[in-house]
Amino acid sequence: MENEETKTVPKSWAMVGGDGPRSYAKNSSYQRGLLDIANELMNESIRETLDFKIPCSDSSNICTFRIADFGCSVGPNTFFAVEKIVEAVEQKYHAQFQNSPPLEFQVFFNDVTANDFNTLFKTLPSYRKYFAAGVPGTFYGRLFPKSTLRLAYSSYSLHWLSKVPEEVADTKSPAWNKGSIQCSGTAKEVAKAYSAQFKNDMDNFLNARAQEIIGGGLMVIIIAGLPDGILMSQTGAGICNELLGSCLVDMAKLGVICEEKVDSFNLPLYYSSAKELEEIIKNNGHFCIERMNTLNHPMMKTKIDVRFAVSQFRAVFQGLLEEHFGRDDVDKIFEYFAKKFAENYDSVFRGETHQHVDHFILLKRNID
Amino acid sequence: MENEETKTVPKSWAMVGGDGPRSYAKNSSYQRGLLDIANELMNESIRETLDFKIPCSDSSNICTFRIADFGCSVGPNTFFAVEKIVEAVEQKYHAQFQNSPPLEFQVFFNDVTANDFNTLFKTLPSYRKYFAAGVPGTFYGRLFPKSTLRLAYSSYSLHWLSKVPEEVADTKSPAWNKGSIQCSGTAKEVAKAYSAQFKNDMDNFLNARAQEIIGGGLMVIIIAGLPDGILMSQTGAGICNELLGSCLVDMAKLGVICEEKVDSFNLPLYYSSAKELEEIIKNNGHFCIERMNTLNHPMMKTKIDVRFAVSQFRAVFQGLLEEHFGRDDVDKIFEYFAKKFAENYDSVFRGETHQHVDHFILLKRNID
Repeated sequence: MENEETKTVPKSWAMVGGDGPRSYAKNSSYQRGLLDIANELMNESIRETLDFKIPCSDSSNICTFRIADFGCSVGPNTFFAVEKIVEAVEQKYHAQFQNSPPLEFQVFFNDVTANDFNTLFKTLPSYRKYFAAGVPGTFYGRLFPKSTLRLAYSSYSLHWLSKVPEEVADTKSPAWNKGSIQCSGTAKEVAKAYSAQFKNDMDNFLNARAQEIIGGGLMVIIIAGLPDGILMSQTGAGICNELLGSCLVDMAKLGVICEEKVDSFNLPLYYSSAKELEEIIKNNGHFCIERMNTLNHPMMKTKIDVRFAVSQFRAVFQGLLEEHFGRDDVDKIFEYFAKKFAENYDSVFRGETHQHVDHFILLKRNID
Repeated sequence: MENEETKTVPKSWAMVGGDGPRSYAKNSSYQRGLLDIANELMNESIRETLDFKIPCSDSSNICTFRIADFGCSVGPNTFFAVEKIVEAVEQKYHAQFQNSPPLEFQVFFNDVTANDFNTLFKTLPSYRKYFAAGVPGTFYGRLFPKSTLRLAYSSYSLHWLSKVPEEVADTKSPAWNKGSIQCSGTAKEVAKAYSAQFKNDMDNFLNARAQEIIGGGLMVIIIAGLPDGILMSQTGAGICNELLGSCLVDMAKLGVICEEKVDSFNLPLYYSSAKELEEIIKNNGHFCIERMNTLNHPMMKTKIDVRFAVSQFRAVFQGLLEEHFGRDDVDKIFEYFAKKFAENYDSVFRGETHQHVDHFILLKRNID
């Protein structure tokens, strides 16, 4: 087989590595808050849906239960989620088969090659109930042998596209995303291009996982999205992104960064609606939807501290901006952004601003 | 299961990472030369010994062939060896089962957590015939679920002990290694302590692998050793190590580095004889020896360039010295070593100097 990473544009940036004050590991409490909510749902899902009756042999009668985390990044969140999954599977197994030999777990942590696996490995809990492995490469292609995973998990990763759709940076295209750096939802052609890219990426993801997950195996997806009928530009996240875009425009005007670079910059991000996701999964046909919930994050209900918000934003976007603008300009961009964010704080969190949502989806691999 | 790494003293240093001029990746041509010789033997071994008749199922009729490289380090050697193994297995499989679905390979690269997995992952060949994963942790404990590996490979790693035997650094012990930094073979009690540590480590390695490798599965071990009846102090490698030791003593006398640190420094290295290895493997009882060869490295037959020798030496020992003496002193140590090595070049390679050997061992896991 060919290394599938070469088939899509490889994402050469990742969340900020290490465990310093600017690292994603230290700036991912939004994602952690989400996990706390998702945890109960996952537990329930595993209890109700996981099926051990599937043949389970590895040329001996010991059963290896393989789990993969797609888009694991680095930090305590990664291990927290996996630990909870392992516990839930173990409980279900012991309840079902009292006198069977214990399950052995092998957990694969996947992210792009640029992810800081060295830090991931150094921070692995020293006491753990599973054998750990890291798997580098884009999850929009194949990463595992056929039918070897029993449970896949992907949290807060699939709203990252494999690439920005080409049309939106093409000044000659009707989908040229003039004056914006995201899929705000207001320009119809831009939205169409982003939506097509998302559909294509999700389809690649589902096809690859369909090969890797055994029939009856489960997949949990947590993904940022939009409530029905709400545009990205109407959400707090969308307004933050626009603010970042306006900083770039300001700085280009001031001659601090290059205007062409600003024009060609777009976020490879797409927030989807529940309806859109459902349609993609149904059309793909390899998985059936066992559960689909909308999560409401408690953090979005309270006004948050400016510095806190900026540091979380930076841990996620720094690598992406560095790749496009170069290392030197990134500090200036975030300095400017922090200032402008503080000035515009009230408009970001004004009454008519909507919250984005997070979709929790439980899929079961069809038995062919 | 507990993470076994906590049970032995974790090795917190590794070969020099990255791909800079001082990296192990750029300074491992001795090990590469060895691979070229070992390659033909491996090919033959797989052709003659690998048995596909072992049940091969993963809850579907597709067969995943799992290979693990124990002590992979970083660099082109790692991928070269694995590629050759995959090719040999594929050839044997196709010759035996013309119309079967293709095998899928999953290759696990294992080394200590301090190994530079980020560089390993970034340098993975973009076209490869296998799914890759990294597995951090000491190979003297369990790293994989039961009976999941079909072929294990460990090249130039197992002569590294899990730790220096405690007695040799204990001034009150009869095994105190006064005036030397290695198991030179001349002090009987020191040799006994090193040999016991090696036996214990090898036993832990074989026990862990016996759990992980399926019955009938193969293991190839390449390990530095001594010809029968030759002491470490009589070999070129041993003389180099003594030279490093004498540099440390000189530098302590000059007040450049701390004397106590020099006294407590010993290399966690043990070169074993074929007889010793055979005895350990037979006593362990989980594997049968299918083949045991002594490799003679062509590089040892010619005088080598001083700078080349020093840079190869540094890529291997830098991490170890850094851990013991601190980062600042390491540059000074290697500067001094390079000077002294050049001055003593002729005595290192004089006529009566013996070559150390490399053992090639092919093991087959017994079927319980």
